[in-house]
Parts: sequence; structure tokens; C-alpha cells
Amino acid sequence: MATHKLLLLPGDGIGPEVMREVEKIVGWFRKRGVGFETETDLVGGSAYDAHGAAISEAAMERAQAADAVLFGAVGGSKWDSVPYAVRPEAGLLRLRKDLGLFANLRPAICYPALADASSLKREVVEGLDIMIVRELTGGVYFGEPKEIVTLEDGSQRAVDTQLYHTHEVERIARVAFDLAGKRRNKVSSAEKFNVMKTGVFWRQVVTRIHKAEFSDVELEHVLADNCAMQLVRNPKQFDVIVTDNLFGDILSDIAAMLTGSLGMLPSASLGAEDPATGQRKALYEPVHGSAPDIAGKGLANPIAMIGSFGMALRYSFGLLDEADRLDKAIANVLTSGTRTKDIAGPGMNAVGTQDVGDAIVKEL
Amino acid sequence: MATHKLLLLPGDGIGPEVMREVEKIVGWFRKRGVGFETETDLVGGSAYDAHGAAISEAAMERAQAADAVLFGAVGGSKWDSVPYAVRPEAGLLRLRKDLGLFANLRPAICYPALADASSLKREVVEGLDIMIVRELTGGVYFGEPKEIVTLEDGSQRAVDTQLYHTHEVERIARVAFDLAGKRRNKVSSAEKFNVMKTGVFWRQVVTRIHKAEFSDVELEHVLADNCAMQLVRNPKQFDVIVTDNLFGDILSDIAAMLTGSLGMLPSASLGAEDPATGQRKALYEPVHGSAPDIAGKGLANPIAMIGSFGMALRYSFGLLDEADRLDKAIANVLTSGTRTKDIAGPGMNAVGTQDVGDAIVKEL
Ligand SMILES: CC(C)[C@H](C(=O)O)[C@@H](O)C(=O)O
Ligand SMILES: CC(C)[C@H](C(=O)O)[C@@H](O)C(=O)O
Repeated sequence: MATHKLLLLPGDGIGPEVMREVEKIVGWFRKRGVGFETETDLVGGSAYDAHGAAISEAAMERAQAADAVLFGAVGGSKWDSVPYAVRPEAGLLRLRKDLGLFANLRPAICYPALADASSLKREVVEGLDIMIVRELTGGVYFGEPKEIVTLEDGSQRAVDTQLYHTHEVERIARVAFDLAGKRRNKVSSAEKFNVMKTGVFWRQVVTRIHKAEFSDVELEHVLADNCAMQLVRNPKQFDVIVTDNLFGDILSDIAAMLTGSLGMLPSASLGAEDPATGQRKALYEPVHGSAPDIAGKGLANPIAMIGSFGMALRYSFGLLDEADRLDKAIANVLTSGTRTKDIAGPGMNAVGTQDVGDAIVKEL
Repeated sequence: MATHKLLLLPGDGIGPEVMREVEKIVGWFRKRGVGFETETDLVGGSAYDAHGAAISEAAMERAQAADAVLFGAVGGSKWDSVPYAVRPEAGLLRLRKDLGLFANLRPAICYPALADASSLKREVVEGLDIMIVRELTGGVYFGEPKEIVTLEDGSQRAVDTQLYHTHEVERIARVAFDLAGKRRNKVSSAEKFNVMKTGVFWRQVVTRIHKAEFSDVELEHVLADNCAMQLVRNPKQFDVIVTDNLFGDILSDIAAMLTGSLGMLPSASLGAEDPATGQRKALYEPVHGSAPDIAGKGLANPIAMIGSFGMALRYSFGLLDEADRLDKAIANVLTSGTRTKDIAGPGMNAVGTQDVGDAIVKEL
């Protein structure tokens, strides 16, 4: 059987403790004969503390050589004043950019057992299942110029550049239409074409790809501000939402928060398929952040991180049976009431990070 | 008594029908001796249909000469394919820019009588009262370059420029701190300093103004994506949120939608105070849009538009008693159950746009 190379980058805050639970799951599959080879390295603030950079060159080489990267979380106020170029987030941004991970898939699913944890009314979110497809290597995150300049009179000017090329919009549109075809067949494309030229452009390219290649999928265009509103008002109207890097950052966070299951949501960041090998670079990470306030206390919910490994099984290794098996184990553990504090219902006894990991292994 | 010059720009969609109700209110105050002089002109799609521009030069001159502009709403799919420079929104953007209306105040208030109309749980939104202070004349809305360029190989590149100068951030920060001092004394400043240089800059300038001039106000910095999440999770943690033009567009729409009272929310866009006269240019508009789907049917809720006139009484004309009187009349009409469909409770008889206007006049 082929060996799958996994690079584990636990990062900062609760990253290491949720990654430890994933290692248990990897160990379980390995014992059952699935070939996994793992390496571990630093990223984010912990890499800065060790090397003075948010990710070392050696770690970048390992990431390039891996079949998939599992990423925990980065950042924390401890590093709020380190130089911009080496801030914790720079490690994640470099991974995305250098591995060419242009397609960020963020499912927002409301688990029926957890619907009451949402701040929204049960009937608004129960059964919610939407997929945000966020462009991840372009836009205002990477466009140049990106600088703060001091002017002659001593005042300053800061600039970021929102930039998109035809092929960048084309390929992310294809990912969205393709996914929609396997779901409820509807794509909502979000931009601000009424104030941004990149919005006008985005709409044109998405419309063209739709007409030429996916006319059987329903397409609607929605303004990003209205999309945010509609997510709050009636999120179940959406199936797949495709949008740019910055709008995607915000809209996917809203969608995640609606579900009441933030500690449950995984994500996948995928590169282009190599036409020769059919392989694509990939990084999997939980939607939640590093949560420094609860780090090291064993309170963190490891399910988003474990679910991210599940997405790796599915999207990177084609191990669909194994992925299904893992998803089922997670669902059973949830139903049994073994839950961390963030999702424990009223009157339920919350358990620790490790207990959830152990319970999932046991279910497997 | 001084005469206050009002320019009415009803615009498109439901704009004209909600503006008609404001005219009744203006008429009532005029009869009681408050000096109002009104003119009406076109803006948006209706201006385009008449003049081929989203606002005529004559209307711009009237706006410059007015003490306050009352603005309805613009846009509709009818004009989706007019040239970019003359699209309906261009009229609103030109008004904001040419009148120097840099400070957009968007209160998000959840009226107890309407809390059940929210998609959020009652306890999450009941009593909500936050103020979004959005920078309105800078950022990615106006920065250059802003263009779509065709490259040699036939592909295209689109660009928008997110740009801020020191004085732009300073003055909006002052507005926010100043307002917070009259409220619950807390400002949350939202940006993406972890990926944007304008975010780094925004945070620096806001911090400096806070230290130098408003150290008695509580200040917190929050990432824009996290701010969106927190608005959904627990909006009552906020008092005043200050943010840039694009984040403000999205965050204020989320905040408005939380309240369940979108048809109720007014907004004010203010310029700098003239040091000589103490006057400032101002435009008042409802938070809701042109809602083409219900336009012309007498279904629109006129309260956001009437409340916008109330903000004009307060912020432009210093007519505080009159503003209070109007607010009370609106509240009484709401309590009496005279409501349009969007806010009618279960089992309530919804009334039309005009009925609400008439009822408010009667209450006055
Ligand atoms: C950590 C940060 C750089 C990142 C982003 O802004 O993309 C995060 O918010 C995310 O959504 O993955
Ligand atoms: C109509 C449009 C140009 C406008 C904006 O994007 O600013 C609107 O969404 C708003 O928030 O006032």
C-alpha cells in the first residue's frame, strides 16, 4: 500500500493539544495497515520564537515534499508587536502562497445535536449545510503595492492592492461549480461589483465560465454586504458560495459562527491538480483560531482538527471508506454526549480534549 | 426662525414612496413654525434614465447648497448593465465624496417590540444598541488605480486600491471616541492588521489618537473577521465599532440584520465641521436598499426614512426637542400595532406605507 506523507504543523495556542489527538487517530489507521508517515515542525509564533521566522526554510521544504499538511492554528497577543514580515500569520500565508493553495473549502454544517448552541433560532440553522469556496492566494492579501509610506509633511499613507487575474477567477469558479454539481447544484457568487472593479471583473469571469462549462448549475450573483445579511437572515437559501480572499475570510467566519459548532468545523486548502500525477498540494486546518485564552488547559475541542484530517483522507488520499468511518465515529461520540465545554448541552458533563480524542479512537 | 434647506433625493425602488411619508412629517413641522425649505431632485437609476448620469450637475449644486440631504435608495436590476461610471450607485458615491461625508453613523437598535422578528434568539438581541462608525470617503471605494486592463496575451487583470492617509483615520477615530463618550464609553476598532498594511496603519493611528485625546474611553482592537463572528455570537458586547469603508459596509449590514428591524434603521453621513460657521454637510438615508421587488406596492416600511429625517433634526439642525418628539411618535405608533408587513407580529394586521406615515403625523 502507498505511504502517505503527512506534515504536522501544530502551531500556537490550542494547536498542539488538538494536533495530539489527531496523532492518535493517525496511529489507529497506521496499525490497521494504512501507510502514513508523519513529520512535525514549527509554524507561527512558536517558529518565530525558535528561528526568528514564522516558518523556517526547512519546514517549507518539508511542506513542499508532503502529500498533505495538517495545520493547527497560529497567533496570539504574545506576538502582537513582532515585525510585520515575521508575525505568526506570515507562516500560514507563505504556505498558502508557495504551495499554490488557491481553493479554500469551508463547510458550515449545523449538527442537529448542537443546534441549540447557535445564537440563531433553531429553525433558522437546523440542518444547515453550506460550503464556502474562498479564493486563497490572490486579492488584497498578496497584491502589491502593500506598504506604509511617510510623506514629506511627516504624515503617512498606507496602501493595499486588491488584484485579480483572469485565470485566478476562472479556476476558483470551476472548483465552486464542480462542488455544487455534487451537492444541491447552486452557486452564489459574492462581490461588490457596484463599487469595485475587481467585483465587476469577478462577475464577468464567473458568468463566462458558467455559460461555457456549467450551465446546468444554478448561478446567482449577490453583493457581499447583502450576502452577509442573508447569511444571518436565512442561511439555508445557500448551497455553495464562491468569493474572493477577503470577503471569503469574513463570510466564512459568519457562516461558521451561525452553526454554533465553530469548534467542529474543518477546512481544506487545495492547489491545482498536477496533470501528470493527478496529485494536488493540500493543507487542512480547523476554522477556529489559536484561542490563547484556553490554550494548555485541555479544554479545546479537537473535533475540527480531527475532521480536517478526515478531509485529508477524502480529498488528498482518496480513502473514502476511512473518511466515512472517521466521520461516523465523530458523530457517535457527539451523540453519546462526550463533549468539550464549548458544545456541552445544559446539564451535560463537559470532558477534556484528550477524552474526546480517546473516545473517537474507541469508536473507530 | 432660521430656514433649513433640505434637498430630497428619493432615488429608485421604494425610495420615492418612503420619501413621500417624510414630506408629510416635514409639512407638519412647517405648519408648527419650523422653517423648512425643500427641493427635490433625481438620483440613481431615475437620474440615469432622465439625464444619462447617476446624478446631474444641477442636483450636485443643490446638494452643495443644502443644509442637509435626505436620500432614499438607489439601484435595481433594471440598471445592472449600464456603464460602470453611470451606474445608480455612482450618484450616491459622488455625493459622499464631493460633500466630504467621511463619517457614516449607523445605529443598530433592536426594538423590544420587534425582537421576535430577528433570526437570532431573543436574549441575544433584546435591548441591543450599537453604533457603527464607518469611514465613508476613503479606502477601496475611491483609491486609484481602479481598473480592468487587458494584457498582451488577451487575459485581463483587475485592480482596486485600498488607501488611507493619516488625517482620514484620525478624524474618523475622533468621531467614534466622541460618540462613545456620550454612550457606554467603549470603542472597538476593526481591521485586518494581520494581513493588511492599511490595517496595521489603522491600528497605529487609532491607538495614538486614543492615548493623546481620549484615554478615558475604553479601546479594544478586533480583527474584522472576528468582529463579524462576535456580532453574530454576542452583539451586546459592543458599544461603538469604528472601521473602514469596506469592512463598515459589511459589518453595519450584519449589525442591522441582527436587530430584525432593518426597515427601521436610519443613518447619517456627516462632513467636517466648518470652523467658522460650525456647520457640517450631511446626508441622511435609511440603511435598507431600494427593494425593487416590493417597490410601488405601498408595502415598504417608511420608518427608517422618517427616522433619518429625525437624525437630521438632531445632528444638522440642533432641533433636539423636535427630534425627541418624532422618535416618541414613531415608538407610539409601533406599540399601537400600526405596522407594515416586515415588522407585523403573528396575527397582526399589516398596514401600508401611507398608513404608517399618517399614523405618525397623527401621533405628533
Ligand atoms: C490567520 C489569518 C491570516 C487568516 C486569514 O485572514 O486568512 C484567518 O483569519 C483565516 O481565515 O484563515
Ligand atoms: C449602494 C452601495 C454603493 C452602498 C455601499 O457599498 O456603500 C451601500 O451598500 C451602503 O452601504 O450604503
